[in-house]
Amino acid sequence: MPAPDAPVTGAHPSPQEPAAAGPARPSRLDPAIAARLRRTSDGLVAAVVRQHDSGEVLMVAWMDDEALHRTLTTGRATYWSRSRREYWVKGATSGHHQYVRSVALDCDGDALLVDVDQVGAACHTGQRTCFFTELPVGGDGAGGR
Amino acid sequence: MPAPDAPVTGAHPSPQEPAAAGPARPSRLDPAIAARLRRTSDGLVAAVVRQHDSGEVLMVAWMDDEALHRTLTTGRATYWSRSRREYWVKGATSGHHQYVRSVALDCDGDALLVDVDQVGAACHTGQRTCFFTELPVGGDGAGGR
Repeated sequence: MPAPDAPVTGAHPSPQEPAAAGPARPSRLDPAIAARLRRTSDGLVAAVVRQHDSGEVLMVAWMDDEALHRTLTTGRATYWSRSRREYWVKGATSGHHQYVRSVALDCDGDALLVDVDQVGAACHTGQRTCFFTELPVGGDGAGGR
Repeated sequence: MPAPDAPVTGAHPSPQEPAAAGPARPSRLDPAIAARLRRTSDGLVAAVVRQHDSGEVLMVAWMDDEALHRTLTTGRATYWSRSRREYWVKGATSGHHQYVRSVALDCDGDALLVDVDQVGAACHTGQRTCFFTELPVGGDGAGGR
């Protein structure tokens, strides 16, 4: 994520976050890439998954170092399941594969943008994208400037 | 995020995640929306921010209940700073405002997709998007099917 705007309170404006955690599990990830990651306390970074040609945001999942390594080296999107505590290759059983076109790391290393070619539905509900619940937006800033 | 594919190991395939945390701070968020959130242990959901007309993914930041409430009711993207432990309105000091066009919650309530009209650069580096570091992708799955 980006550094926040400088605080009104005058607190230090440097984009310092809490001390980053190291890898949670052994990994073959390129150490030069691993050194750039800023992981959550459980060793994860957020992966935003986008359909490469339409710009549609399909889902958000989590990767640890090894999931990122597998994603980068196999070209198949691979995540860490926080509930089952194991790796899962998207589409392995559903057939809804994600063929990876590109992966980009954000400026402070805690999020990935994964451009894929999604086969079928990305969401377990059968919807194309997981983001199908619209929330109401109001206020002066809404609807344009 | 979506439910993972059914595990190869035969573990329970239900998309159960660790028990969701409640709100970390007092909030005026609509209780019907709050009830749908599945927060991290520190009370946050991931917010994926996208330019509404181009599909460009600009950044990932974090919201707690109150940050989401402020975003929905003011139409100005508002986040929770994990480092400074305070709210920040994007653009408040930088001028790089985010006018919110729509907000969608994902299927299991732990991520938001925020479509905005971004003024200037989203990234503190001055780049339009925070995702400017490409990682190398190889493997059979890469580059299409």
